[in-house]
Amino acid sequence: MRVEIWSDIACPWCYVGKARFEKALAAFPHRERVEVVHRSFELDPGRAKDDIQPVISMLTGKYGMSEAQAEAGEDNLGAQAAAEGLPYRTRGRDHGSTFDMHRLLHFAREQGRQVELLDLLYRANFAEERSVFDDDERLVELAGAAGLDTGAARGVLADPQAYADEVRADEREAAELGANGVPFFVLDRTYGVSGAQPAEVFARALTQAWGERPPLTPVDGDAEACGPDGCAVPQQ
Amino acid sequence: MRVEIWSDIACPWCYVGKARFEKALAAFPHRERVEVVHRSFELDPGRAKDDIQPVISMLTGKYGMSEAQAEAGEDNLGAQAAAEGLPYRTRGRDHGSTFDMHRLLHFAREQGRQVELLDLLYRANFAEERSVFDDDERLVELAGAAGLDTGAARGVLADPQAYADEVRADEREAAELGANGVPFFVLDRTYGVSGAQPAEVFARALTQAWGERPPLTPVDGDAEACGPDGCAVPQQ
Repeated sequence: MRVEIWSDIACPWCYVGKARFEKALAAFPHRERVEVVHRSFELDPGRAKDDIQPVISMLTGKYGMSEAQAEAGEDNLGAQAAAEGLPYRTRGRDHGSTFDMHRLLHFAREQGRQVELLDLLYRANFAEERSVFDDDERLVELAGAAGLDTGAARGVLADPQAYADEVRADEREAAELGANGVPFFVLDRTYGVSGAQPAEVFARALTQAWGERPPLTPVDGDAEACGPDGCAVPQQ
Repeated sequence: MRVEIWSDIACPWCYVGKARFEKALAAFPHRERVEVVHRSFELDPGRAKDDIQPVISMLTGKYGMSEAQAEAGEDNLGAQAAAEGLPYRTRGRDHGSTFDMHRLLHFAREQGRQVELLDLLYRANFAEERSVFDDDERLVELAGAAGLDTGAARGVLADPQAYADEVRADEREAAELGANGVPFFVLDRTYGVSGAQPAEVFARALTQAWGERPPLTPVDGDAEACGPDGCAVPQQ
């Protein structure tokens, strides 16, 4: 079974939801046969790369919250993260474009290092003091820690077209699948789970998707194939 | 869209069918958004690693063909391969266990080099004089040509447990999906195509799977999520 998770590095509920999903997955009897794929979704897709601002002032400016409301929201997220064992800095984080991080995650996927890089990006954005937005070398360093070649990662970041189509294709696909927020979980392209649900909901979704997989629809009859009894052209 | 192809390196119709599928894919308008994954299927799963024999004598011994029938079968396969532009040695090939090649293909997938390795293995088995069965170093060399680290590939081959579970999981999944021969193509876990069908059938399957994707079944309602309008707990 394959689980695709649309998410953004700048999305706190994605960070929390991923931990809740992983708790369910760890207890799922068929966990060894579940493949997890990250898909790109930007919450703030038009944002310029050099447009960086503190999270609290982004919240008050973009969504018209008071500073107290914004801080209360961050405190709630910090508590929810803590409940999942995740570190979370409720004050002093930055907000900015995540496009380059998604491009880097597609490169990492090709190199078999996507899981590692995604975890490091979340951790760096939500829990570490140094910003992930103001310096490409910060991302190069995280790519290296994820096991990627740092020279190749620097090359991806320096070329704004590299993996850009892959990011946009993921985003188009999210829209086609009906996702208008993240995290958004898709199991074998059959079941959808929206949001940072409790682990119990993810457990139910995994069980349901595993147990109730509809049979494949055959396209045309059989053709030349090989099986335990040899290679033959079937009689149709 | 994702297309999973169950196949065996020792399966001539898989080699031919892959080329036919790729012809259809090259002409498919959404080809950039199609991901192709190799899945393991052994035609001869119990075969010992040191049990190597000429293909013609395997065909006469295992399937009770006359030598003339076996040779005619190989000649037909050679002609079908040639029609797809593929080289094929109709005489002198070996048959043996492909388990180690499938293990190596799973390692290659993790490293983002599965497509390259699969093509090289097919080519080596069907078109090159040197056997792929009698020497691990032959596989190490092909792994290196596919861009893999040769030391790591040698390590995978030397450890019979490495990626063995992944191979068996693919084979179990093939059985669960109803495949009893290969090649077997599964599009988004929804449509199945069996055998080395003509390119037209693959074209139809791609179009059908792309255009008629059933909507996702939602598991539970919405939960905490972030969208263009901020991060919130939806009212349910």
